[in-house]
Amino acid sequence: MRYYIDELHKYVGETVELKGWVYNTRGSKKIKFLILRDGTGLCQCIFFNGDCEDEAFDKFPELTQETCVKVTGTVKAEPRSPGGYELSAKTFEVIATSQDYPITPKEHGVDFLMNHRHLWLRSKKQHAVMRVRSEIINAIRSFFDDRGFTCTDAPIFTPNACEGTSTLFSTKYFDDKAYLSQSGQLYMEATAAALGKVYCFGPTFRAEKSKTRRHLIEFWMVEPEVAFNDLYDNMELAEQFVEYIVQRTLKNKKHELEILERDISKLEPIKGSFPRLHYSEAAEMIKKENPDFVIGDDFGGTDETIISSQFDKPVFVHHFPTAIKAFYMKEEPEDKQFSLSCDLLATEGYGEIIGGGQREESLQVIESKIKEHDLNLDDFSWYRDLRRYGSFPHSGFGLGIERTVAWICGLNHVRETIPFPRLYGRLHP
Amino acid sequence: MRYYIDELHKYVGETVELKGWVYNTRGSKKIKFLILRDGTGLCQCIFFNGDCEDEAFDKFPELTQETCVKVTGTVKAEPRSPGGYELSAKTFEVIATSQDYPITPKEHGVDFLMNHRHLWLRSKKQHAVMRVRSEIINAIRSFFDDRGFTCTDAPIFTPNACEGTSTLFSTKYFDDKAYLSQSGQLYMEATAAALGKVYCFGPTFRAEKSKTRRHLIEFWMVEPEVAFNDLYDNMELAEQFVEYIVQRTLKNKKHELEILERDISKLEPIKGSFPRLHYSEAAEMIKKENPDFVIGDDFGGTDETIISSQFDKPVFVHHFPTAIKAFYMKEEPEDKQFSLSCDLLATEGYGEIIGGGQREESLQVIESKIKEHDLNLDDFSWYRDLRRYGSFPHSGFGLGIERTVAWICGLNHVRETIPFPRLYGRLHP
Repeated sequence: MRYYIDELHKYVGETVELKGWVYNTRGSKKIKFLILRDGTGLCQCIFFNGDCEDEAFDKFPELTQETCVKVTGTVKAEPRSPGGYELSAKTFEVIATSQDYPITPKEHGVDFLMNHRHLWLRSKKQHAVMRVRSEIINAIRSFFDDRGFTCTDAPIFTPNACEGTSTLFSTKYFDDKAYLSQSGQLYMEATAAALGKVYCFGPTFRAEKSKTRRHLIEFWMVEPEVAFNDLYDNMELAEQFVEYIVQRTLKNKKHELEILERDISKLEPIKGSFPRLHYSEAAEMIKKENPDFVIGDDFGGTDETIISSQFDKPVFVHHFPTAIKAFYMKEEPEDKQFSLSCDLLATEGYGEIIGGGQREESLQVIESKIKEHDLNLDDFSWYRDLRRYGSFPHSGFGLGIERTVAWICGLNHVRETIPFPRLYGRLHP
Repeated sequence: MRYYIDELHKYVGETVELKGWVYNTRGSKKIKFLILRDGTGLCQCIFFNGDCEDEAFDKFPELTQETCVKVTGTVKAEPRSPGGYELSAKTFEVIATSQDYPITPKEHGVDFLMNHRHLWLRSKKQHAVMRVRSEIINAIRSFFDDRGFTCTDAPIFTPNACEGTSTLFSTKYFDDKAYLSQSGQLYMEATAAALGKVYCFGPTFRAEKSKTRRHLIEFWMVEPEVAFNDLYDNMELAEQFVEYIVQRTLKNKKHELEILERDISKLEPIKGSFPRLHYSEAAEMIKKENPDFVIGDDFGGTDETIISSQFDKPVFVHHFPTAIKAFYMKEEPEDKQFSLSCDLLATEGYGEIIGGGQREESLQVIESKIKEHDLNLDDFSWYRDLRRYGSFPHSGFGLGIERTVAWICGLNHVRETIPFPRLYGRLHP
């Protein structure tokens, strides 16, 4: 029988054995407190002199931070205790010691913590982030699976670079060269033609020498693609998707968001329709506050914040200039200088969490676009086949997991949103 | 309003518009049949001369294979029809043509089909495989999420090679060198110390120049790791996990397994306890049928089949010789020449689908093992910390997704189990 801290409510009055690690201790001559963590939660174990075994009381000082321990005791309901239950402890047994644990309750610098990421993950706040991340991943899967999407994973190794090689990692692939994928989109266009509603969910890689709070070298992305969806269907899907993720996390991870001191009143309004701005409107808005902004350019982080700060919901910006978007983005038929693209900017200055749009379906147009973008037609022979054999209107988007986790958790930097972050200058641990 | 073929049962008697692709056509002067596919299923659309629009009847020959088309008609229940419903068609509109579609109903060679994988995925059998794959992925997630596991993704980029570099892909990581992960296990050991029950699920890479029906260069793996689980707990978890995946797929993807002509009577018994063989027993069994087998060696594909063919359930082989297992595998305390390792061999000769075991928790032993395996102690400094600060018994395993899909689908080769397979000599499309 295995007992976990988050299931103690089932065993009130019973004697149980808990296995875990020493989170903290304090005590006096009469009574000693051990806060035990087992991965599911924290539990206060109380050793009363005379009530517990004498030996346990005597050797209590062995319980240094992160010592692995088995504690035996009786479960008691205790509303004042974290979690609502505590253990009236009888005895304990040290499974393995821990001397001079590097992360102490005092403040540590970020670099120190990142170097000790494998241990830092044991702290309460990092637990909460990881649990929220896990919930978000689960929510993403459920959203698509429940709506009849088929998960069709895109390959990581790709033979050619679809948007230039400058930010791609490459590897020797036997006698060939392979690039590591930055996006599964082109592949999702193929599987959408096969299965209608599809998504992929996996790691993607960007070799960018940038050290911003929004960038990781290795990050996870979910990319749905839907046959016969136009730009507006796409925004509707993205809207429902983001509402679902946020509301489900609020419901299921309330405790974790409390630990993170997240102001959830900022997340509660994330439902229903999100405001939508044409690029030109958004650009005007930015120009007012940032005169240096050049209309026609892509938005920087500050520009995104200027827009998002005016709304209490995420905001779509659609119809970005064709010139700044990828070759596969369909042009607005009424005005070809704009594209049927859309980004979703999160609230509170968290920036772009979704990018997507409607894809060009004309073989002729896509071929001339490939050439205009200085890409090699041959590299896209299979992709062009999708326009050759029963081409179809279709749209999709990509949502970055780490930015979404940072936003929902209210974290200042994406580096804490993934178990082992890879950043420019950080490949360890 | 969007109508999908798998939802036609809701619209009997109503006029609907279906969008999809021409799967097949046939006809006479009086009546013409279009089999439409839309990714959710196939639907027979019947054009009756006089009943449908004259123009639709006349231009019916435009409906070449894979033409993208919108069909309008009335939904009828028809038990003899695939799916149980058909469309009494009024008219159609071609969205985009398809001339000389390369994959015809005639037989094609595997190489041809693999070169056209982006189109091959549109065929009925590949649909079924992709849907089963998606269901299995969903089942994997649900199994762990429902049991309180936290998904803690391991990094793909790793600074060092944990089992030698010979089968690792590498890439320039700015001024460093990074290897592409073959397993997230070491990282899961760290997150298990933090969160108790964890798993990672992502792509892994093996640069093996082998062309067997069981190997992919890029394959997906799920790796759970549980604090305080020993070898036997680990086998129990693996057993429940595999039962869950198989039984859920049987329940939810019956239709797809029928399309694949899978003999499901072979899958139905996959429940309850699985047989368990000590390596020595298994080795004796093999030796009887394969006299060349050297006791003490690892099993080859044929050897695995000799064992698995004797059972109608997957079979565990545990306690492999320490000498043939990785440095982190714990030795059997009673007899150190054997390790607390276990593999699970699928039925019907599908071979190993799970490998795992209990990990060594002693700092001293793990350090001497690292040296014995000619690995660099410094490369494992963070990993050794897990033994330094509150070491804990723990176990886990890895399940290969593609082999599991091949087994459940009854496919001869793993190449059809992933949307875009990467094989030795194949990086395209």
